[in-house]
Amino acid sequence: MDVGTGPAGRLGVAVVGMGGAVATTAAAGVELLRAGLASHAGLPLAAPDVRELAQRAGLVDYTALEFAGWDLTADDLAKAAEVHGVLDPVQHRAVAPALAAIRPWPGIGNPDFCRNVVGDHAVGGHGHRAAIAAITADLAAFRRDRGLERVVVINLASTERRVDPSAPVFADLAAFEAALDADDPAIGPAVLYAYAAITAGSPYANFTPSVAADVPAIVQLARERGVPVAGKDGKTGQTMLKTVLAAGLRQRALHVDGWFSTNLLGNRDGRALDDPDSLASKIDTKGSVLDDLLGYHVEDHVVNIAYYRPRGDAKEAWDNIDLTGFLGQRMQLKVNFLCRDSILAAPLVLEIARVLDAAHRRGEGGVAEQLGVFFKAPMTATLSGPVEHALHHQDAALRAWLAAGA
Amino acid sequence: MDVGTGPAGRLGVAVVGMGGAVATTAAAGVELLRAGLASHAGLPLAAPDVRELAQRAGLVDYTALEFAGWDLTADDLAKAAEVHGVLDPVQHRAVAPALAAIRPWPGIGNPDFCRNVVGDHAVGGHGHRAAIAAITADLAAFRRDRGLERVVVINLASTERRVDPSAPVFADLAAFEAALDADDPAIGPAVLYAYAAITAGSPYANFTPSVAADVPAIVQLARERGVPVAGKDGKTGQTMLKTVLAAGLRQRALHVDGWFSTNLLGNRDGRALDDPDSLASKIDTKGSVLDDLLGYHVEDHVVNIAYYRPRGDAKEAWDNIDLTGFLGQRMQLKVNFLCRDSILAAPLVLEIARVLDAAHRRGEGGVAEQLGVFFKAPMTATLSGPVEHALHHQDAALRAWLAAGA
Amino acid sequence: MDVGTGPAGRLGVAVVGMGGAVATTAAAGVELLRAGLASHAGLPLAAPDVRELAQRAGLVDYTALEFAGWDLTADDLAKAAEVHGVLDPVQHRAVAPALAAIRPWPGIGNPDFCRNVVGDHAVGGHGHRAAIAAITADLAAFRRDRGLERVVVINLASTERRVDPSAPVFADLAAFEAALDADDPAIGPAVLYAYAAITAGSPYANFTPSVAADVPAIVQLARERGVPVAGKDGKTGQTMLKTVLAAGLRQRALHVDGWFSTNLLGNRDGRALDDPDSLASKIDTKGSVLDDLLGYHVEDHVVNIAYYRPRGDAKEAWDNIDLTGFLGQRMQLKVNFLCRDSILAAPLVLEIARVLDAAHRRGEGGVAEQLGVFFKAPMTATLSGPVEHALHHQDAALRAWLAAGA
Amino acid sequence: MDVGTGPAGRLGVAVVGMGGAVATTAAAGVELLRAGLASHAGLPLAAPDVRELAQRAGLVDYTALEFAGWDLTADDLAKAAEVHGVLDPVQHRAVAPALAAIRPWPGIGNPDFCRNVVGDHAVGGHGHRAAIAAITADLAAFRRDRGLERVVVINLASTERRVDPSAPVFADLAAFEAALDADDPAIGPAVLYAYAAITAGSPYANFTPSVAADVPAIVQLARERGVPVAGKDGKTGQTMLKTVLAAGLRQRALHVDGWFSTNLLGNRDGRALDDPDSLASKIDTKGSVLDDLLGYHVEDHVVNIAYYRPRGDAKEAWDNIDLTGFLGQRMQLKVNFLCRDSILAAPLVLEIARVLDAAHRRGEGGVAEQLGVFFKAPMTATLSGPVEHALHHQDAALRAWLAAGA
Repeated sequence: MDVGTGPAGRLGVAVVGMGGAVATTAAAGVELLRAGLASHAGLPLAAPDVRELAQRAGLVDYTALEFAGWDLTADDLAKAAEVHGVLDPVQHRAVAPALAAIRPWPGIGNPDFCRNVVGDHAVGGHGHRAAIAAITADLAAFRRDRGLERVVVINLASTERRVDPSAPVFADLAAFEAALDADDPAIGPAVLYAYAAITAGSPYANFTPSVAADVPAIVQLARERGVPVAGKDGKTGQTMLKTVLAAGLRQRALHVDGWFSTNLLGNRDGRALDDPDSLASKIDTKGSVLDDLLGYHVEDHVVNIAYYRPRGDAKEAWDNIDLTGFLGQRMQLKVNFLCRDSILAAPLVLEIARVLDAAHRRGEGGVAEQLGVFFKAPMTATLSGPVEHALHHQDAALRAWLAAGA
Repeated sequence: MDVGTGPAGRLGVAVVGMGGAVATTAAAGVELLRAGLASHAGLPLAAPDVRELAQRAGLVDYTALEFAGWDLTADDLAKAAEVHGVLDPVQHRAVAPALAAIRPWPGIGNPDFCRNVVGDHAVGGHGHRAAIAAITADLAAFRRDRGLERVVVINLASTERRVDPSAPVFADLAAFEAALDADDPAIGPAVLYAYAAITAGSPYANFTPSVAADVPAIVQLARERGVPVAGKDGKTGQTMLKTVLAAGLRQRALHVDGWFSTNLLGNRDGRALDDPDSLASKIDTKGSVLDDLLGYHVEDHVVNIAYYRPRGDAKEAWDNIDLTGFLGQRMQLKVNFLCRDSILAAPLVLEIARVLDAAHRRGEGGVAEQLGVFFKAPMTATLSGPVEHALHHQDAALRAWLAAGA
Repeated sequence: MDVGTGPAGRLGVAVVGMGGAVATTAAAGVELLRAGLASHAGLPLAAPDVRELAQRAGLVDYTALEFAGWDLTADDLAKAAEVHGVLDPVQHRAVAPALAAIRPWPGIGNPDFCRNVVGDHAVGGHGHRAAIAAITADLAAFRRDRGLERVVVINLASTERRVDPSAPVFADLAAFEAALDADDPAIGPAVLYAYAAITAGSPYANFTPSVAADVPAIVQLARERGVPVAGKDGKTGQTMLKTVLAAGLRQRALHVDGWFSTNLLGNRDGRALDDPDSLASKIDTKGSVLDDLLGYHVEDHVVNIAYYRPRGDAKEAWDNIDLTGFLGQRMQLKVNFLCRDSILAAPLVLEIARVLDAAHRRGEGGVAEQLGVFFKAPMTATLSGPVEHALHHQDAALRAWLAAGA
Repeated sequence: MDVGTGPAGRLGVAVVGMGGAVATTAAAGVELLRAGLASHAGLPLAAPDVRELAQRAGLVDYTALEFAGWDLTADDLAKAAEVHGVLDPVQHRAVAPALAAIRPWPGIGNPDFCRNVVGDHAVGGHGHRAAIAAITADLAAFRRDRGLERVVVINLASTERRVDPSAPVFADLAAFEAALDADDPAIGPAVLYAYAAITAGSPYANFTPSVAADVPAIVQLARERGVPVAGKDGKTGQTMLKTVLAAGLRQRALHVDGWFSTNLLGNRDGRALDDPDSLASKIDTKGSVLDDLLGYHVEDHVVNIAYYRPRGDAKEAWDNIDLTGFLGQRMQLKVNFLCRDSILAAPLVLEIARVLDAAHRRGEGGVAEQLGVFFKAPMTATLSGPVEHALHHQDAALRAWLAAGA
């Protein structure tokens, strides 16, 4: 299967959290596609009814992507792939040499923001400005050493603790710059990466629930520099289904009395979420989706995430939905999704990178709203106002954007 | 809650299978709405975001509906409601007097078409023409006795055996009329009701999987008489969810390797489907939906329907979906819907009656495609060509039709 | 159905938490049995294969039970039954007069032990001795006013916070008495009720996870006074199934890699468990069962209990079990129990009362080990040593005890 | 882990259906145990609390087993293992050489008894006596060529169509011998293998639902020859859980109103059961279990088995149980077992072979009742009378038998 060669040149993808399961799967997936050992299953913009449109809209081919990135663990990606256990043995053997060549750059660690994931592979210097300088230097070296014209930065790191995005420090670019100079402790790694990427002219996407580009200061920077940003929190398993089901229940006017969601997660992300502070961030972005979709507040909407090791990366979601239908009669709907976290997430990462790059080439700076279909908490241009969560509407918006550039 | 009074005058709804659970629930629901004892939960066109549009489009109010109909069992509807056990005791007490006044007219029975539902309350005469005359007389008496300007006919009877809709006898109106005269055994009760209704100027909807209006001869008649027809097979529980989920899976390019659906059904419809011939009709309409939605053929699509008495009308559906995602990795999705058959179906019947009536007043004859959202096997104007099964597209089509008439 | 009249005389059952859902259901159940409006479904010792044995062993008939008890809410039981919504309307109407006559005595409240259940119907006095005196007076009045020879006390109150049963204050009777005199804050209401009951010659059972009779001091008292005690924590829904399934898995040598249990509970008990301290007690007694049954430690045994209101008393449990079988291959077992908390618990309460009474009449003091079948954390005579958790072995032990007294 | 060497000498296991998934897994498992590449997980008599007893009772070690057998497909077992996909790649590589050396002998085919499994590797001769002679010759060659003192025969072939075990032809040995001579068409392959095995002095077990040793003629033969026989229909997944759960529900006196069981099966056994005649045999043995365990007839006990390919050998069972508890209130229990058919079955086959061999050496002929724990329809010595289905009672019986010989 060939989805076309796309525009000339390769596209660098610099990942925050390069050693994690999602990033490793994304990089391995591109290698397997290059080797002709994987199909396009799971890649939304490679489906028969959209692939040609995507190509005409100027998206680079999947095989044009080149991965590098930061991590707090120094293992090369062949080792990381082994730890995460996402690939099957045949796949692992096929791509191990290519993955072994990818060794993460030292990451920006801050235990105050992510307690449960501590590594020994951190940037040496002190202070926010030193961290930004290190990120900038890594990006420059990536371009130079690999001969890349363009690099996109994507945050796939573990979830940070909850941060108030409306704090004064994030209110505008001037306040934020001053806070950087003062090493303000309210600024965590995710925001530093976003700031450094955009300053270096790299589009930035936040696939995690952490606060990063979704504050006025960073959006202002992105707009001023003409750099697109997207986020946040990849919509993969349970929430993706939630937005699909809730839209259907609304069409039939079935009233949702309660929605109880449990997640079993055994990979590194699950361990990070075992920290109540990180969990709070995650549940925040999951929570508002339902009310927005249904048009009313579901008081009994419960979301649990449990770190449960026997599954490793093979996530499981169990949802129970209590419904009231005609004549006040009650019904129940239960959904059990035995999924694979990284297998669902990695292809979305590839699509986001391709779309952000094309948007940048189109000269679009600021929030890339057309990417809402891939996020649990889609950013809007103004960081306020109503958010579209229905998957089919989001999909239509992405296709319209593709068509406009085709 | 008041959804508006709608156009002057009441609307008769003559139901084939008036004593069944769905029909009884629909009639009881209207009585409860009239008495202010039920909310609009479960009524798709009474939801806050569409109710005003529906009113402006000329739909009559729910409380303008008046029920009557045919059944092979003579019980009045208060008795039927007791048998089906759909209402709770308080609701039953409230509407029993009104329901007791509804006594089904004798039905057209034909054991060759529906073996498991045999009643003793059948029309006396012999032959197709006699049956049509009886139906016509019942409709005329309904209008006259209740002072109704307009009557809609809806088929809610048990599923008939499979019939070939492309048989010569259904090919055009002339052939069909000749077959009527010859008492052709290929013509079953459902088609006779459709023919009689349209001839009498009543819009006709087929909420069952039986072959009825979905043959060229009847569509030709409907077009010639300027009478709208709709169908077929109400999309209530499992299939409704299927069309919602499949659209979401397609957006994410998750390949469906197999879809296994089991239904537990303990009401009169379940008993009818205990006959393999009737079951075949049902599974037919369920089957094609999935392939159309996904854009490819799912070879391992299995649909079982089991008659299981402990639940009565409280249907249960269990679905297992095998998926292949990125890198060929496999996932499973399981859905368990503890629903109520009649509670899901009855409100759709009310909406269909209201829309057909408005379409008739707008002068629209032939297939009412805007009602596709309520059917498993939506009829198209030409009875061929691609069918839209995605709930959100179907919903958009209905809203567009409403807006055009508002 | 008649299970025999049993020994002469009625048996008083004084319940701690009389206004709760379980107690109300137990009292209502006895009234419905008396009125011939309920069958013996759900009563383990009324099953055809054991009822005669139970009668010969001297158990009083269910209809010989008379209920009274303490609660922090003053509502009579007809009101409580309405609040809890356990009875259907017909049942409620039938027993409302009898239930209305049961008005709880003021309870012993201590917000330090159970934060989320606060009532305004508490005993006035101060200090442990005053509380004991009030309980004793209530029991005496109950006997006198209702002409009861024998009274059993059963704790059905909401779960108290976790307490260390090996604290010095509970080590022996002398230490405990001294602590009572000193109003030691380590002593909570559950222990006070146990002490007062036994002192007054009433057998005592603890159906809750709270620490009560399961400390050396109280067992010593029970033995000295010749009064049987039993506990703790009724084995009703999820844990009952766990003990059944785990025994089966062990027979087949299927290794349990992980067991993830979630509970949805919307009644007053659920609200109490919304307090992390009370939850800790509950999870404690649930936790050890599995390891004991399997013969090895399951490190990934997770038990969640969520307060989820839409269900009221209709509890739901969802369990996922990860298994390794032959050749190291992995399997999963999922169990979804849509149960009713009080409907499962109340009949066990009736059986416990009947057995404790018979044990007392047989002259057995101390721990009634034969009642282990009804508890999540069965007490052993020495409060130490191995505990039998397999339901079928526990059942055999109870039958052997019955046979010994028949 | 070492469970002891057992008695001197190796034990031959001649399997009917040697190329099937269960047989291949059993043979591969013994090879992996020999190579130290598999643990004893899933082997009931290797569990810590019973292994020593089993050894003292004279059971041979698992590694003493040597496999051979008949099949209608000529593939060697390395090829069969690849087709069935039960082993993981590492396991397959390790045992492929050993498995490649096992080439099935031509089988006895009879399309009248098993339509959906047709092979081209059948015994040439015509008539029952020729078939028996071929089986006998194969067994003799097996002993001679491999130097085996003792050989056990186990039927693991696909399910045959339903046969009436009380037909005159099976009534006693004389009638049966006459029918053999007359090539009576009522005699299918399973019975021929049983007859030939016993005649050759080999213990025989029927792990399938087919009629084989469970007729008076064959039991008479087994008794006369002093050869033990066992069966029938291995109790692996759903039915094993059923016997565990039903016993628990009975203890709590929860009344089973209905039990709906669905199975998804994608291996060769599933294809065989796609034939209604074979399915009827299977459902027969599944059906009676429940009533026997509960002590009453469950009218709404439905068992469906569906051939669903996406899973291959990874079977799935979904059960729904409708319960009535105290005060007539209703509950539901749902069990979803994602299991592996051969992984559950193969270890039971090893245990059955070891126990039959020990029984034979103890001089026990006729029905080996102690093996009931491994069968859905345990044979009793008289082929009539009450059958024990409760797993824990069956387990106790097996342990008692082991202890008696230890």
